[in-house]
Amino acid sequence: MAALGGDRRALARLLTAVENRTPVAEAALRELYPKAGRAHLVGITGPPGSGKSTLVAAIIGRLREAGRSVAVLAVDPSSPITGGALLGDRVRMQAYAGDRDVFIRSMAARGHAGGLSSATGAAAAVLDAAGFDLILIETVGTGQSEVEVAAMADTTVVLEAPEMGDEVQAIKAGLLEVADIVVVNKGDRPGAQRTAAQLRAMLVAAPKVGRGDGRPRPKAPEVLLTTAATGEGVPQLLAALERHRAAGQGSDAAATRLARAEAQVWAIAAERLRSRLHDPTHRSATASTLRAVADHDLDPYAAADRLLADVE
Amino acid sequence: MAALGGDRRALARLLTAVENRTPVAEAALRELYPKAGRAHLVGITGPPGSGKSTLVAAIIGRLREAGRSVAVLAVDPSSPITGGALLGDRVRMQAYAGDRDVFIRSMAARGHAGGLSSATGAAAAVLDAAGFDLILIETVGTGQSEVEVAAMADTTVVLEAPEMGDEVQAIKAGLLEVADIVVVNKGDRPGAQRTAAQLRAMLVAAPKVGRGDGRPRPKAPEVLLTTAATGEGVPQLLAALERHRAAGQGSDAAATRLARAEAQVWAIAAERLRSRLHDPTHRSATASTLRAVADHDLDPYAAADRLLADVE
Repeated sequence: MAALGGDRRALARLLTAVENRTPVAEAALRELYPKAGRAHLVGITGPPGSGKSTLVAAIIGRLREAGRSVAVLAVDPSSPITGGALLGDRVRMQAYAGDRDVFIRSMAARGHAGGLSSATGAAAAVLDAAGFDLILIETVGTGQSEVEVAAMADTTVVLEAPEMGDEVQAIKAGLLEVADIVVVNKGDRPGAQRTAAQLRAMLVAAPKVGRGDGRPRPKAPEVLLTTAATGEGVPQLLAALERHRAAGQGSDAAATRLARAEAQVWAIAAERLRSRLHDPTHRSATASTLRAVADHDLDPYAAADRLLADVE
Repeated sequence: MAALGGDRRALARLLTAVENRTPVAEAALRELYPKAGRAHLVGITGPPGSGKSTLVAAIIGRLREAGRSVAVLAVDPSSPITGGALLGDRVRMQAYAGDRDVFIRSMAARGHAGGLSSATGAAAAVLDAAGFDLILIETVGTGQSEVEVAAMADTTVVLEAPEMGDEVQAIKAGLLEVADIVVVNKGDRPGAQRTAAQLRAMLVAAPKVGRGDGRPRPKAPEVLLTTAATGEGVPQLLAALERHRAAGQGSDAAATRLARAEAQVWAIAAERLRSRLHDPTHRSATASTLRAVADHDLDPYAAADRLLADVE
């Protein structure tokens, strides 16, 4: 497959096919799936303004210095990495325009529920099979989909900026539950140390979700300080990523991989079922059942049972 | 059913059962579903800082003056309405503590994809059957789930604050696609008129999603200015809601209701299928299929086909 052999245009085309769920994509994914499973999938999530994209750019820089290849999937409609809002980041990213070991891709946050994490999982498998050492999945970190996407990674980094308002503090609680590593960025600002201390206190109590068993995690995640704009703290973050990955041969990592597999398989099964309900054989029965629900003549539970009985 | 007869504690208990998907909830929903379909479901969505909760409080005030009953489903982990971050709003809301025609409920944004919109749809049906005239569904408006929840309403109001940064401008594009009415809140600030003009220009081109056919909408949504803190513009917003509802006897509104029914039925069918895969008969086959995918010994498409064949 040209897409896996270093042909960047073929890779970009395959990712587009994956996002659009074409038959070509399915055939390719079935073929390449056994080759995937070697990359380190790192989710990086945090609210707008936390300096996420600047940190992603700094991580890319350090990894390239170390001779490692890196791909970025930006699942963020407002990402300056792909949207081009921050000139500084754009200039930094353009330095890698000719570098075959850096690949950046924006994922559209559209479609039905689960579609985003399914497409992102498939795109990560493509980049993994294409041989990238590290795959960064950048999400904006508000909303359930983003949390799901973040939880899909081997290692999830949650970013915070110091001294944010009360509303962001409240959002934090949900995000911290998926964190393996917490980074307080803009670490040179006043309040950064205090924010880190507060987060450490919160994290002792917070359980880890997405591991499928609901048990509290064995130990609280590390809290690090970075200043992405200057690169300070970035080597320490990369070391923490390595440590988390190396530790990840235990049951926690196995549970993460199993949960990721389940989410992928489930999304495909749901799509298969949905398309069966709308195929020429079932289309008109499906439509009349749904119309009866819209008219409140049939309750949605009875309708669900009817639809499932129809396709079986 | 006591929950429908004005017993607020029974109503709260039923909503908890609905959120937790208990068998009691299913039985109750099947019974009450034919009684639902009379309320006006209004989605209100916008980024943190746009003054959403203050506007919700102002809307409640005006509706009560007009003798109409109102329920709020706050699907926002950071909502000051339920989270209590903004003292002013809390004081305003406490004025309704003894008012049986105001009901406020926070929905947890947790669980698997689609779970949130399914639970919110079911909760709205309960409040609808309980006789509330208007049901406000408040979401934070970032992320796919929130957009889905917003699109579930009969009328979707998207809130913006004047003079927000570039990142928020980019988020806007996705949100505007679900808007039936756009409100520029904090309308007394400099830049509000300019923001409204920019939005009007953007909206002429933006299609409407969630109507199931992908056609551009017949006309651009209204753009209104409000100052929620003083109540200015709120009567005009309520009038616009009424106009949108009155116009909603056409194909656009029918498509919205059909899409809502489909989302509800689909979420239930998916849950049914998922629980079947994990029931005692199928549990071990499901687990070994998923483990094979996690180990990259089986591709997720083959696994999905295997699981679907298993339960049929």
